[in-house]
Amino acid sequence: MTETTRVDAAGAPPLLEQIDAPRDLKELAPEDLPRLCAEIRAFLLASVARTGGHLGSNLGVVELTVALHRVFDFRRDQLVFDVSHQAYAHKLLTGRRAGFPLLRQTGGMCGFTNPAESEYDLFHTGHAGTAISLGLGLALSAAREADPPRVVSLVGDAALGAGVAFEALNHAAASGARLVVVLNDNEWSISKSVGGLARYLSRIRSSRLVQRAHQEVQGLIQAIPVIGPRVDRTLEQIGEVVRHAVVPGHIFEELGVTYVGPLDGHDVGLLVEHFTRARGLEGVVLIHVLTEKGRGHPKAETHPERVHGVKAAEKSSEKPRAAGAESKKVPPQLVPGEPRPAVGPAYTQAFAEALLRLAERDVRVQAITAAMPSGTGLDAFAQRFPARFFDTGITEQHAVALAAGMAKGGLRPVAAIYSTFLQRGYDQVFQEVALQGLPVVLALDRAGLVGADGPTHNGVFDIAYLRTLPGLVLAAPRDASDLERMLELALRHDGPFALRFPRDNTPGQERIHRSERRAMAPGKAETLVEGESVVIWAYGALVNQALEAAARCARRGLQVGVVDARFAKPLDVELLARHAQTMRWIVTLEEHQRAGGFGSAVLEALNALPPTPARVKVLAIPDRFLDHKTTREEQLAEAGLDADGVERAVRALLQPTLA
Amino acid sequence: MTETTRVDAAGAPPLLEQIDAPRDLKELAPEDLPRLCAEIRAFLLASVARTGGHLGSNLGVVELTVALHRVFDFRRDQLVFDVSHQAYAHKLLTGRRAGFPLLRQTGGMCGFTNPAESEYDLFHTGHAGTAISLGLGLALSAAREADPPRVVSLVGDAALGAGVAFEALNHAAASGARLVVVLNDNEWSISKSVGGLARYLSRIRSSRLVQRAHQEVQGLIQAIPVIGPRVDRTLEQIGEVVRHAVVPGHIFEELGVTYVGPLDGHDVGLLVEHFTRARGLEGVVLIHVLTEKGRGHPKAETHPERVHGVKAAEKSSEKPRAAGAESKKVPPQLVPGEPRPAVGPAYTQAFAEALLRLAERDVRVQAITAAMPSGTGLDAFAQRFPARFFDTGITEQHAVALAAGMAKGGLRPVAAIYSTFLQRGYDQVFQEVALQGLPVVLALDRAGLVGADGPTHNGVFDIAYLRTLPGLVLAAPRDASDLERMLELALRHDGPFALRFPRDNTPGQERIHRSERRAMAPGKAETLVEGESVVIWAYGALVNQALEAAARCARRGLQVGVVDARFAKPLDVELLARHAQTMRWIVTLEEHQRAGGFGSAVLEALNALPPTPARVKVLAIPDRFLDHKTTREEQLAEAGLDADGVERAVRALLQPTLA
Repeated sequence: MTETTRVDAAGAPPLLEQIDAPRDLKELAPEDLPRLCAEIRAFLLASVARTGGHLGSNLGVVELTVALHRVFDFRRDQLVFDVSHQAYAHKLLTGRRAGFPLLRQTGGMCGFTNPAESEYDLFHTGHAGTAISLGLGLALSAAREADPPRVVSLVGDAALGAGVAFEALNHAAASGARLVVVLNDNEWSISKSVGGLARYLSRIRSSRLVQRAHQEVQGLIQAIPVIGPRVDRTLEQIGEVVRHAVVPGHIFEELGVTYVGPLDGHDVGLLVEHFTRARGLEGVVLIHVLTEKGRGHPKAETHPERVHGVKAAEKSSEKPRAAGAESKKVPPQLVPGEPRPAVGPAYTQAFAEALLRLAERDVRVQAITAAMPSGTGLDAFAQRFPARFFDTGITEQHAVALAAGMAKGGLRPVAAIYSTFLQRGYDQVFQEVALQGLPVVLALDRAGLVGADGPTHNGVFDIAYLRTLPGLVLAAPRDASDLERMLELALRHDGPFALRFPRDNTPGQERIHRSERRAMAPGKAETLVEGESVVIWAYGALVNQALEAAARCARRGLQVGVVDARFAKPLDVELLARHAQTMRWIVTLEEHQRAGGFGSAVLEALNALPPTPARVKVLAIPDRFLDHKTTREEQLAEAGLDADGVERAVRALLQPTLA
Repeated sequence: MTETTRVDAAGAPPLLEQIDAPRDLKELAPEDLPRLCAEIRAFLLASVARTGGHLGSNLGVVELTVALHRVFDFRRDQLVFDVSHQAYAHKLLTGRRAGFPLLRQTGGMCGFTNPAESEYDLFHTGHAGTAISLGLGLALSAAREADPPRVVSLVGDAALGAGVAFEALNHAAASGARLVVVLNDNEWSISKSVGGLARYLSRIRSSRLVQRAHQEVQGLIQAIPVIGPRVDRTLEQIGEVVRHAVVPGHIFEELGVTYVGPLDGHDVGLLVEHFTRARGLEGVVLIHVLTEKGRGHPKAETHPERVHGVKAAEKSSEKPRAAGAESKKVPPQLVPGEPRPAVGPAYTQAFAEALLRLAERDVRVQAITAAMPSGTGLDAFAQRFPARFFDTGITEQHAVALAAGMAKGGLRPVAAIYSTFLQRGYDQVFQEVALQGLPVVLALDRAGLVGADGPTHNGVFDIAYLRTLPGLVLAAPRDASDLERMLELALRHDGPFALRFPRDNTPGQERIHRSERRAMAPGKAETLVEGESVVIWAYGALVNQALEAAARCARRGLQVGVVDARFAKPLDVELLARHAQTMRWIVTLEEHQRAGGFGSAVLEALNALPPTPARVKVLAIPDRFLDHKTTREEQLAEAGLDADGVERAVRALLQPTLA
């Protein structure tokens, strides 16, 4: 960061202090804009270091955001953020400075745009690629007004590789609608952008040489003697041809989009100038802006991936840590004599390490990610087996279908995709995987509640949307050891297999349940604790909460059983039938929305059996979108799915008067 | 059709008779190939006229298919059909001539490629756009072999507009894999192709003029005197620039794909020549082939959309009729004195007409389709309100997100999408619609079993995948009148609303149940027949089967109740609770896969109530992929969901010894 800034005691620097709404920004002198940008950057660096959040991408779009609010009036005009994790400067400029101390914390400001927070936030998003569709919808609506507002969609370069973005651009270009698409090209999505389009954008970035050649060509053409109308026409065509070919953005122009750029995304004056011009243009205008992710943060500029998301600083240190799997990557070190750690490695890490071990033994094993090599822990795999690793970009549809093709070709692909993002590839799970019965392994990371990222990232629908597809095996491990055995089983299984695990740490050594570790087989559950009249059938990581709840009940003299269901499909109907005869209550426990989930599967299975005395209590996530909270644990508690909640629910069943 | 052909008594013309496998095709003299193509075309015209099927697209790819089998050896090489409804010539050439009399009939040959039928069919598909992904997966697998087979993906021009196809091409281009993509460009997908890409392809088609200019430019450049190394380099650059700009396929070349074409898709010799060359090339080669949909069929060439699918000829007539909504479009004419017809208009037509009427009254109502203007009945809407009609192409993701944008902009969009294709837009239903709570109406046509199209087109998962999303209203009408009232309710409802209806006719006048037609409200069911100890809760069109079954039971003295559930979400829990107290059996009936469907919703709701004496019997589609049959009715019967099956199930409950 070269700009000098001064931050006052309250944390708000002088210019920023004066901005309570975008109209205040319009009052500033043009020469104040760079200073404001510097202040915003300083504010974000200081604030996000304390709270955690998507630092890098927000530092990259400071000038871009200031310029947009300077040129457009988003009380009337409409700004659609793609993904919207890059909206911090926008939040700062729209009266939400006071919200930053509680960014992404329980009860505090959301990390994405959110209509519940501000009239300037149109949508609450978090999945990439749909801003052009949304913007086009708004623009088509606006076109019916006499003096229509202008619509701006702000899209990252990697999001442009998402199929839905292409679909939308393709439609928008031919629609006649007025739409400004700002392409924020930082050459980094979350990891490095991939694919032919990324290479194309990179060629545009290095096209200054070609532009110089362009001038020379023009001169040459003018020097050719004109020798008749046919050659004249031909020369005109050469001119046209050359103009087209050396002007960057040819792909977009071919589709019918007016291309502007590439522009220096950190020159706020330049951006204001071009946005002003674009505001007056008809049709679809794509403004290609080059930014540096993490601009102003020394570490971010060299390793943008590491600061995509940073965790809140711990009390002892103000240094931001990278979020997600990254933060949970350090396995607990066992030092002789010291107590064993309470938590084990993250599920993500356990998965990644297990996959590496299995891949060492079987050359057919391949790993696929859709732009989440670090988030899924596959970066280690990529280093060890670069030829067997495939990052397809933000393209879950293609990633799943690609896996199907590989499986048909005899390989054993493992597609690691967040539960919520697999929704994007749902039809491919249906047609390319399940209908063909191909041995594709789907590893659903972030299955369950995710804490600070909130409802766009909660992975709480996958059991329902996958369970309805014939032939899929659905499994969930309760700890690192089972995860590895389950993955091994999945790779041996001759058909599609999905396993889900949450964004959390696996239980630590001393908390691991010492069961017999029965052999894994689809449709076989594992009894961990025998119950007297109540048994908890838990699915996945929540088995640990069930064990804790059962232990607490045992201390009160209630012998509550615990079954690790292991499979949501096929269910262990035999054991279930036995429990239906011997138990008063079967309690199902899952980190998933109630409708159509694991509990539903149990109800369906029991309904198909002769009537039994046992009753079923379903513990699951209620049928509404859960807001973000600081941690997954808080969200589990809110849904009554932590050990406390489970214990309360069980005791209420046995002592109905206490309920 | 200019070629002369002779068809022998057995229906197989002389050359075609000799082809029992692709190797026989390789034996023919080059000059015999056009004759073979003519014979195939004649065979298809005669055969598909009898059985029904996708005539137009198959007539278009005859030469293309012959050329592919001539050049490649698909015992080793691998051919992936996109959609695969255009594989009839492929089936003919791979030993399945005898299967044509039972094409798409119960127990007969499938209308798509199907690995169960032939080693030459790699995948069973029916949703567009994934062939490049599948092909790339195969190619990456093959690349590990010493002498890898070649992989060919055959893709239509409209499928190329699907996001997943763009994702795959983008990845393939950068992957280094060897893959031949044959772009079958007939300028018609099912309806007219839409979007910027379609315009671009059309410019390529008319680029012969530009190609001529190219030659002249080359000559001019050679005539410019060379005056030093800098100008020399510049001239080189002009050459490069001109070569790139006037060679069609610039978009593909920019992405890193080698472009060949456009080629005349009915010149089999030319295709053989270029496929042979492409076979030897590295990287991804896209061969752009121009074909005429319906080539050789006079009606098809002028109205390709009408013969996309043709129905089997009726006994009295050999003339093919268009399939789907088209065939059911003629409403029953009531002639005074004549008996009322047994069936009413198709649900599709009832929907389309109701939407038209509602759109007349509310200018905010918009109609969106993803390449199915005729299949969804929206073509009439398009004619009446062209400015309020949007065909986005094969882009369900974008179509749903576009609707969300429009709803946010104050419009009332109705996106009519087949149930099975909405799977492609699932994530947008989640994020753009449900999470935002926007008033988008999703009209799910072809919800349920579809008959001849088989498992790729059965819409039997939508209740499960939608029911798990908070805030969506799920509804299904039992006849044309309720459909209109439901659609009216949906357009008034301030939130997302999905309604589903099958590919079938609505019940005719005399079969319509005369109920009180109670006002529609989410969460309110309608009791049609009071029961004594059994009540059938039916959802959607199967209410009619429930009524028929109840009527038959009544004739045997069993008073079986019938409830039209109307809503799968929210359920009428009040009425359900009453029945749980008063009935011995609640039978649920739905045209949907068992896991997570309407019956599950009933089980969940009852489970949340205090225990009651009533038991539940779920009648639904079993948890496996149902093969195609000639008609939906046969499939319903197979699943036990026709009136017979329902009656049997109900009587079995009451007389368990008869079960």
